Amino acid sequence: MSDLADISRPIQQHLGAFDEVFRRSIRSNIGLVNLITRYILRQKGKKVRPLLVLLTADLCGGVTEKTYRGATLVEILHTATLIHDDVVDDADTRRGLASINAVWKNKIAVLMGDFLLSKGLLLSLEHDDYHFLKTTSTAVKRMSEGEIHQIQKSRKLDMDEETYLRIIGDKTASLLSTCCEIGAASTTEDPEKRRLMREYGENVGIAFQIRDDLLDYIGRKSITGKPTGLDLSEKKLTLPLIHAIGQALPKREKKSSG
Amino acid sequence: MSDLADISRPIQQHLGAFDEVFRRSIRSNIGLVNLITRYILRQKGKKVRPLLVLLTADLCGGVTEKTYRGATLVEILHTATLIHDDVVDDADTRRGLASINAVWKNKIAVLMGDFLLSKGLLLSLEHDDYHFLKTTSTAVKRMSEGEIHQIQKSRKLDMDEETYLRIIGDKTASLLSTCCEIGAASTTEDPEKRRLMREYGENVGIAFQIRDDLLDYIGRKSITGKPTGLDLSEKKLTLPLIHAIGQALPKREKKSSG
Repeated sequence: MSDLADISRPIQQHLGAFDEVFRRSIRSNIGLVNLITRYILRQKGKKVRPLLVLLTADLCGGVTEKTYRGATLVEILHTATLIHDDVVDDADTRRGLASINAVWKNKIAVLMGDFLLSKGLLLSLEHDDYHFLKTTSTAVKRMSEGEIHQIQKSRKLDMDEETYLRIIGDKTASLLSTCCEIGAASTTEDPEKRRLMREYGENVGIAFQIRDDLLDYIGRKSITGKPTGLDLSEKKLTLPLIHAIGQALPKREKKSSG
Repeated sequence: MSDLADISRPIQQHLGAFDEVFRRSIRSNIGLVNLITRYILRQKGKKVRPLLVLLTADLCGGVTEKTYRGATLVEILHTATLIHDDVVDDADTRRGLASINAVWKNKIAVLMGDFLLSKGLLLSLEHDDYHFLKTTSTAVKRMSEGEIHQIQKSRKLDMDEETYLRIIGDKTASLLSTCCEIGAASTTEDPEKRRLMREYGENVGIAFQIRDDLLDYIGRKSITGKPTGLDLSEKKLTLPLIHAIGQALPKREKKSSG
């Protein structure tokens, strides 16, 4: 967390304004909906995605009103996804508090996710931020396709490094890439700057996922806070296992033909 | 179903073209995704929502390419919602076939819903059909708020006829209203025609929901195919119960004050 504080220092003064736009954007006329959004606001996340939007905007010309809307869109989308994930995984906690489904049951949790998603769309539609919606929808498409692709390939033990890189690009890097592109697009019309930021985000995402997959084999829980060995037990083929299988195959072939 | 065939006769010749646009719009490069979309296409639904889009377009000037896209957007959205609903309800069947979650498990079902949603958004965004997205997002917002509002009010037995009408307008009529508005907007710029169609759809939705809530008390399963008494057991306050409570209260008040 202290690393994140260092990274976010250049845009520290914009975080309050972002929080305010985020809070305003998810407001409702229905009492119970507002009770739950207030609860969501208490679940303090790391805000990695809005930070990326703000940082790239700062780098490309300066944070604008449009930057806050872009940061809000990606954070609303991310929050809605987490709420739905917790329903699917039957998770009890989120960000140190009880999950929405644990407090209000599955039905309300799913409806709140839908509500947030619609508010994110409306925020962009009301301000003609159509480019934000295009890049974000493309990211959602890539994320769902990437996850399903990984399940498909892992089942058949049919995965090479090239496919792995494509899959983690789709499932992890696409949204970070979108955050960086939205940050740039919120402050500059220069297509080259937007392309560079998009590419930067894509590479950050790929690097993050390779590291995360490696830590699942060699990480220490006392440092990462995460258990290890999950990918292997779920038969998820990631880079370490792809290399291990690549090393192991020739010997087995020799054996069966000898 | 024969009633529906009667109603859809004027646009019967357009259904093939709609099916084709729908099929094309949910295509993917990932094998497993396409396997599941082909399965979804085999689950024959009643297509009430695309029918409304096509019928109102036919009435307002004639079915266009844009009409097919509007009909596809609402049907994709509806399909995604059903897939997610089946995960939450742990439902085994849908439209006479095994549900997506029953065949491929919850994780893939949720991802497929997300994939469909993103494809619906992209279809509209790629053709600049922003008005479709605005009215649809507003409907999704009203649907989720309406459902949560009903849960909130029912818990406290605090519901009058006016609130009930607002709730069923939000949760049921909003999407049908959107279908009719999209149909009109796909073929005419005339704001009065659009308004009339939107109002028609809203009233159809309210009428449908009042009838549905009534059938939960007095319907015969042999005719409706649905069990009765669910609303009462779930403590959902609908119009029949609101009237019953309204009749019952004065007597109880007399008793306690006497």
